[in-house]
Amino acid sequence: MKPAKLAAVLGSDAIGREARSVLEDHSAVRLWLRLLSCSTQIEQEIRTRLRQRFATTLPRFDYLAQLERHPEGLRMKQLGSYLMVSGGNVTGLTDQLEAEGFVQRLPDPEDRRSWILQLTAQGRSHFLGMAAEHEAWLIELLGGFEGANRLYELLGQLRVHLAQPENKA
Amino acid sequence: MKPAKLAAVLGSDAIGREARSVLEDHSAVRLWLRLLSCSTQIEQEIRTRLRQRFATTLPRFDYLAQLERHPEGLRMKQLGSYLMVSGGNVTGLTDQLEAEGFVQRLPDPEDRRSWILQLTAQGRSHFLGMAAEHEAWLIELLGGFEGANRLYELLGQLRVHLAQPENKA
Repeated sequence: MKPAKLAAVLGSDAIGREARSVLEDHSAVRLWLRLLSCSTQIEQEIRTRLRQRFATTLPRFDYLAQLERHPEGLRMKQLGSYLMVSGGNVTGLTDQLEAEGFVQRLPDPEDRRSWILQLTAQGRSHFLGMAAEHEAWLIELLGGFEGANRLYELLGQLRVHLAQPENKA
Repeated sequence: MKPAKLAAVLGSDAIGREARSVLEDHSAVRLWLRLLSCSTQIEQEIRTRLRQRFATTLPRFDYLAQLERHPEGLRMKQLGSYLMVSGGNVTGLTDQLEAEGFVQRLPDPEDRRSWILQLTAQGRSHFLGMAAEHEAWLIELLGGFEGANRLYELLGQLRVHLAQPENKA
């Protein structure tokens, strides 16, 4: 349902004590808040450790991780679409990481106005050093969780559900 | 395990093809990436709709939601600790929302240098209007998901797991 249509259905007369109690109780909102809270809690922990251990940020780590997964390199637009963390400015990050010697721009054979971004050898080794610790942090945080496999499975089903056209904006 | 200790265990000689394959395969990392991806996908959708429908942001919505849940008001520090979304500057948001007439500062009876923040009647009605749509969006996104109850249950167990002292930094 499009927002405009929703607004018509939920006109302001629907908002009152009753709407509020539905709001507080409805399972979709509760599920979302719990998902957000788990995700935020782990994310804050990872952000803190990346800052303390490597003086780096989650968007920088995410950027390098995507390039590491694509040794053939990525166009800026592709890379932007793969990033998991919002708030990273791809152009700004590229300038930074290139100046630090972690990323290089290669001419794009298919488009003279475009570039292919690739990790340098130094960038790859820098990333793998952080990634090994990043993994150890996650094992520390999640490793002993007995529901891990079931949760992984269910989140996979949720991704499929969210990808269905009728569940999209 | 503290980061320094981890670093010793995972010395740079551990980083190579083998470490990389463990990295790519390990279930804790895969679980985290899937959790992050589901959460980010819904969050982006909610951010977009809040902007399009109400010209507002998720940190503002989150701020108002916490105050709405505490009609008695909250100290700024408490409010900050309840916020779900990172990136909101509590002082800046308070100034903004007070200027717009949605939030008021009351003297704190227990601390003359501090304030209690409360929704105004206008702020409450503004929030409830957005919240009703926000709920409808989440029903639209998550409502038909058959694993919802099991996922809610498992995320609850994950929160308990993450709250255990040995799983904290």
